[in-house]
Amino acid sequence: MARVTLLTDFGAADGYVAAMKGAIATVAPSVIIDDAAHDVLAGDVRTAAWALAGYWRIYPAGTVHVAVIDPGVGGSRRALALEADGRFLVGPDNGVFTRVLQQVASVRMVSIEATAFMRDVISSTFHGRDIFGPAAAYLATGTPLDALGPEAAEPYLLPLPQPRRSVDAVHGEVVHVDRFGNLVTNIPLVWMTAGAVVRIGAHVLPLRRTYGDVESGAPVALTGSHGCVEISVRDDDARWVLGADVGVAVSLTGLTRGGPD
Amino acid sequence: MARVTLLTDFGAADGYVAAMKGAIATVAPSVIIDDAAHDVLAGDVRTAAWALAGYWRIYPAGTVHVAVIDPGVGGSRRALALEADGRFLVGPDNGVFTRVLQQVASVRMVSIEATAFMRDVISSTFHGRDIFGPAAAYLATGTPLDALGPEAAEPYLLPLPQPRRSVDAVHGEVVHVDRFGNLVTNIPLVWMTAGAVVRIGAHVLPLRRTYGDVESGAPVALTGSHGCVEISVRDDDARWVLGADVGVAVSLTGLTRGGPD
Amino acid sequence: MARVTLLTDFGAADGYVAAMKGAIATVAPSVIIDDAAHDVLAGDVRTAAWALAGYWRIYPAGTVHVAVIDPGVGGSRRALALEADGRFLVGPDNGVFTRVLQQVASVRMVSIEATAFMRDVISSTFHGRDIFGPAAAYLATGTPLDALGPEAAEPYLLPLPQPRRSVDAVHGEVVHVDRFGNLVTNIPLVWMTAGAVVRIGAHVLPLRRTYGDVESGAPVALTGSHGCVEISVRDDDARWVLGADVGVAVSLTGLTRGGPD
Repeated sequence: MARVTLLTDFGAADGYVAAMKGAIATVAPSVIIDDAAHDVLAGDVRTAAWALAGYWRIYPAGTVHVAVIDPGVGGSRRALALEADGRFLVGPDNGVFTRVLQQVASVRMVSIEATAFMRDVISSTFHGRDIFGPAAAYLATGTPLDALGPEAAEPYLLPLPQPRRSVDAVHGEVVHVDRFGNLVTNIPLVWMTAGAVVRIGAHVLPLRRTYGDVESGAPVALTGSHGCVEISVRDDDARWVLGADVGVAVSLTGLTRGGPD
Repeated sequence: MARVTLLTDFGAADGYVAAMKGAIATVAPSVIIDDAAHDVLAGDVRTAAWALAGYWRIYPAGTVHVAVIDPGVGGSRRALALEADGRFLVGPDNGVFTRVLQQVASVRMVSIEATAFMRDVISSTFHGRDIFGPAAAYLATGTPLDALGPEAAEPYLLPLPQPRRSVDAVHGEVVHVDRFGNLVTNIPLVWMTAGAVVRIGAHVLPLRRTYGDVESGAPVALTGSHGCVEISVRDDDARWVLGADVGVAVSLTGLTRGGPD
Repeated sequence: MARVTLLTDFGAADGYVAAMKGAIATVAPSVIIDDAAHDVLAGDVRTAAWALAGYWRIYPAGTVHVAVIDPGVGGSRRALALEADGRFLVGPDNGVFTRVLQQVASVRMVSIEATAFMRDVISSTFHGRDIFGPAAAYLATGTPLDALGPEAAEPYLLPLPQPRRSVDAVHGEVVHVDRFGNLVTNIPLVWMTAGAVVRIGAHVLPLRRTYGDVESGAPVALTGSHGCVEISVRDDDARWVLGADVGVAVSLTGLTRGGPD
């Protein structure tokens, strides 16, 4: 049986996560449920999309990933189930899959509408428990994707900032700050060339391999675990030390060519 | 084998949760342990009772729910194990089961006293590890409830505020504020009638179906996932926007009759 | 199959924990992964070492404990895998195993270097996903410890403060403050003798059995769950009430002898 993972903004004090797990366990009593993260800020779909992109394909094929950051619950947004690269994803059609969809060439997608795969009573405020959890459990136990509802197209995509390239530079920005204060940018590492440097505010940083390549307290540009340029401060929090946050401009300059085509 | 769920106020930095899990795994090596919530405020039995009530019956029969919010550990309070509606519950006799007991017609209950089902050495400060965890593991592996100790009666019940009904109104209060700032009241939705409105402070709110039925930033009264009236602010935190917290008065007025008998 | 536990400073908002779990599940699809704790302060190896010591041996033999608090990732610190008392431990060689190693007479230890047991691409910033997680999964599925790499010696040990003994007193200090505000000291309970008292600041406290042995709001000295003297305030937070934190002096005085030899 496949595993199910849960990503939510439910926190760890209210019991909502457990209600989702119970709904899953009722359908699939022996399924293993892995908590991905539950402390995403309430309604922060952008951060959830970033987090999900970092693990969904690290899991083996067959895994079912549930993402419930769902401020529009009970409204007109669709409930989606996707299959991409052999993994399944379940959640609201509010952009939470934006980065996943950027990473794959093709995807199958349905709108979850078959009530046979939902809880008997559907609330209008808790679809994680009543719709998404059960759908994930059915997928984990072998229910085919298209049993859940009709084929769907045109998922909502977050308007993520795109890096701009010029002849010898790339202009991007910070798109996520993690728990360590690392500034994750939207500049793919594949655009870096020998001799190029990373600029943020007044800082000009060569790309290094790891934190230990600079002195404690010094800023450093690195290859982040998502494959983009990250800016860190060794043994400290780059957000505070550099006074930067999501949206702050970052550039690569001195490129010997504009990057790959 | 049944699943075990854990609800505590241990947080996620000290390793206490893992010690409980280890004690469970020693008894039941292949049992699946689901974290329910561990960030309940230290000693906040009232919130734990509310959280537990929201998921214990969503899980399938056979599940063992452990709730260790236990400021009286090592004192005279009993250690309880309950069976209700086919689920088991394990924890201190301090009111954490109050809301569960309100939801069921009958319950079997024992005082956990059989040392054969505890760890070899029992501390006086960590019964989650030494008594409750092992008891849950034995229940999950088929040990009968009454093997754990003698039948028990009169569990301690929290003095929860009860809503008062008059001919055309119900007077209740906020009993929980969740991570999203939703104000959960103690007014059961079954008391709502057509044309009635929800009052909190100066706000008069018709009951709506979901958040999206009002403008962003507006307050709204809803059917909460626990079956009681909830007051929310769309895309914001009702606690801060409305300046309300646990204990604040909420009423239903304009009822065409006083509710069901 | 053995269980795997995870202790990190990754928090619960970024998806890093899930990436580790995915890497483990890829190697060992049906392994149960228990979260130990993920809210250790970023880079706080000292606290992680304390937490780990409290649960690793509560789990049954065969369990694989992963501890990734790893500010030196990508640098020259070794990646270690240990076997002690039948349990396995995996993590960076930065002192996180210090307290575990104090608890055992013997240990087998290897430096994880065999790339066959790592992910295909090894980042220089996320060895939890690329090295430690997979190593743990291989150990959980029966891979012998020495397959992971060459034997290793002289693990880095944190310079933990040691209590000093005189004829009739022991001078120690607070080494951890837990979520409840309990002040955990480095004074083993075995050194306590009848009539001795615990001193912290201006407070002179007899050793009691549990919180309930003093009035609400009063300080109390207890046997902590790790086997050392702990100082608590009943129904309150000793850190704030007593104005104490890690490093504050604590002593046992009035000992009838200096303790066991």
